[in-house]
Amino acid sequence: MRKKPATVSRLDRWLARKLIASREGVPVAFVLWNGEEIRGGGAAPLARVRFADRRALRGLALHPELAFGDAYAAGRIEVEGDLVRLLGALFAAPERRDLLGRLAARRWRQPRPNTTRRAHANIQRHYDLGNDFYRLWLDEGMAYTCAYFPSPGISLEEAQLAKFEHVCRKLRLRPGERVVEAGCGWGSLALYMAECHGARVTACNISREQVDFAREQARRRGLAGRVHFVHDDYRELRGRYDAFASVGMLEHVGRAHHAELGRVIDRCLEPAGRGLLHSIGRVKALPMNEWVQQRIFPGSYSPTLSEMAALLEPFGFAVLDVENLRLHYARTLEHWLERFEKQALRVEQRFDRAFVRTWRLYLAGAIASFRASSFELFQVLFARAGYADVPWTREHLSAAPRSAGPDR
Amino acid sequence: MRKKPATVSRLDRWLARKLIASREGVPVAFVLWNGEEIRGGGAAPLARVRFADRRALRGLALHPELAFGDAYAAGRIEVEGDLVRLLGALFAAPERRDLLGRLAARRWRQPRPNTTRRAHANIQRHYDLGNDFYRLWLDEGMAYTCAYFPSPGISLEEAQLAKFEHVCRKLRLRPGERVVEAGCGWGSLALYMAECHGARVTACNISREQVDFAREQARRRGLAGRVHFVHDDYRELRGRYDAFASVGMLEHVGRAHHAELGRVIDRCLEPAGRGLLHSIGRVKALPMNEWVQQRIFPGSYSPTLSEMAALLEPFGFAVLDVENLRLHYARTLEHWLERFEKQALRVEQRFDRAFVRTWRLYLAGAIASFRASSFELFQVLFARAGYADVPWTREHLSAAPRSAGPDR
Repeated sequence: MRKKPATVSRLDRWLARKLIASREGVPVAFVLWNGEEIRGGGAAPLARVRFADRRALRGLALHPELAFGDAYAAGRIEVEGDLVRLLGALFAAPERRDLLGRLAARRWRQPRPNTTRRAHANIQRHYDLGNDFYRLWLDEGMAYTCAYFPSPGISLEEAQLAKFEHVCRKLRLRPGERVVEAGCGWGSLALYMAECHGARVTACNISREQVDFAREQARRRGLAGRVHFVHDDYRELRGRYDAFASVGMLEHVGRAHHAELGRVIDRCLEPAGRGLLHSIGRVKALPMNEWVQQRIFPGSYSPTLSEMAALLEPFGFAVLDVENLRLHYARTLEHWLERFEKQALRVEQRFDRAFVRTWRLYLAGAIASFRASSFELFQVLFARAGYADVPWTREHLSAAPRSAGPDR
Repeated sequence: MRKKPATVSRLDRWLARKLIASREGVPVAFVLWNGEEIRGGGAAPLARVRFADRRALRGLALHPELAFGDAYAAGRIEVEGDLVRLLGALFAAPERRDLLGRLAARRWRQPRPNTTRRAHANIQRHYDLGNDFYRLWLDEGMAYTCAYFPSPGISLEEAQLAKFEHVCRKLRLRPGERVVEAGCGWGSLALYMAECHGARVTACNISREQVDFAREQARRRGLAGRVHFVHDDYRELRGRYDAFASVGMLEHVGRAHHAELGRVIDRCLEPAGRGLLHSIGRVKALPMNEWVQQRIFPGSYSPTLSEMAALLEPFGFAVLDVENLRLHYARTLEHWLERFEKQALRVEQRFDRAFVRTWRLYLAGAIASFRASSFELFQVLFARAGYADVPWTREHLSAAPRSAGPDR
């Protein structure tokens, strides 16, 4: 028999008002478990947040990020209205630091170091959920990083290919050159480099499922001789290469290991080599959202641009070019969320309702974060100091796009 | 009666050999005051360095940067051969850290803080040498910062205009917008922004001679109502603006004052404002060459990119774009040195021989520094976090160049 919800107390109402007021100017309504509605400000509410019980409300005061995420996943918090817009408004709002605000303030918790063993566990938890799952809502090539939209209306497939091409052009990749890729996902960039630019690629990844998939792709596309997928940690990379690329791995490296990554790049790059680091970043150094850290990406940390530059400088790498692709990631995520929603029933059948709600919140929160500049996306091109073969302009980046894309 | 030069001792020869060996692989010959030649390595020497006396040689061991510069300026050290190439090879060579290398190693000397008063003295010493002097070898518009060469063969005049246009496009300057410029030199960028983009510009500078010249230019070109030149320190800037620009001033700010500059930008920039910092930079944090610090640019410091980003991040500015224009500065300086050499006799008549030699060494050393990556040139575009009006591509930077340039 289901327990009857508790009545709403004066403390509950006070708390609800305080929580609404703590994010100044965000027009939101709280609907408590007895149906009572509490509103902030004058504007019509952007969304209604419905609380199933007192625990869902009180959790927000104590561990706002974690409690909101968990209660949302469990269905004890429901959002009626546009989830992305609500989260965006919350992320963009100046946080009021009264007593409650201070209570709710993020506490900087340095994540545990990502040792090789822990890195494996972290990565397995997210990336080994099953290729079938990701295939439901990623593009055909299974690129799970920020795409590049030369115009915002192109398809996700086109935008992922445009990103690969953008990266290759920044690196000025030439046929026959050797590339090392640290963290290769399902291998789509590595395969593109070999197929469209004639590169010989060594790409590593510690996700078993991703590497198996990538190897199978290489076989199917006749690229197995030119792309070597290694199931190993970036710290184990050996050899010398003409180009280094890492797209969307730095976030999993962790700040404590930036110097290790710098050493790997230094060890692997030829004197005339070029490198590209593509990573989610931040304007200010902050820990990852606690819910994301605990439920989505354990061990993750998104660095500031100064931290990314400081990763490279001790090894004598000169930054040649930085591009902030924040809005491109928001657009990419919009595609993913749209596709995910279309497949939500199938995802629920395979996992459960809480899983669907967890992923919905994560994708919606990520869109909101990039829109509100809680996250940036830095694409950093570098070479050794003194590298002289730098083009006079960036015209080579915007030349007519390749007509065909990869032949399949 | 002139003193007869001392004979060359065994210690002198030993020292000469050690000095040559301390810069591994640089093919250079030393010619001592008795005509005796001492060579390193096997290759034919790139240049002969002729020492007039023992003091010139021994100074190199104790204060290599300062002693070389001063002895060169005084004519006690003469370089036969290509000065730029010799300096470039020296800057690029790995320094051998044996006993002598360690003795000669740079000692980090934190320059004194650039208080408002000291900043005035520093700037006067360099920039108030007389507009007539600079007019001899700068471009017509008197731009004394890195130009932009969309193709390396264009003239210095064209490249300076291309730089102005490049900056305006990065800032996406619109007619009627208000711009604040911190450190405006002789005013050429400010005048260009008003004349070619319809901006209303407030530009500050603490060099009296430069401000007087800039105001006179504004009057002549009918821009006095739209460009306001202020003879004051960047710290005194007030008002709110749509864009902030600073081209070649950060080097004079000094690391201890980066936060002050950040506060000024934060105070002056509208919520939807854009900013651009253009500065000589370095890959690693190092003090300025001691001779340059003492004889050319007192109080100067060239930051790393991580330091530039760290100037902006505490104020919530997101970096949108970074371009490294190192080779453009080498090219700019080649133009300046070539023009300077053509006017060397006139400069000597106005000042003296030591002044000509000092400036020759400074310009040649700067070319070599940019070629060897001892210096970089970072152009950093930024806006407040959340600024959403960012173009999807950089195509707007490479659109067909403006046909006319400024009308005069």
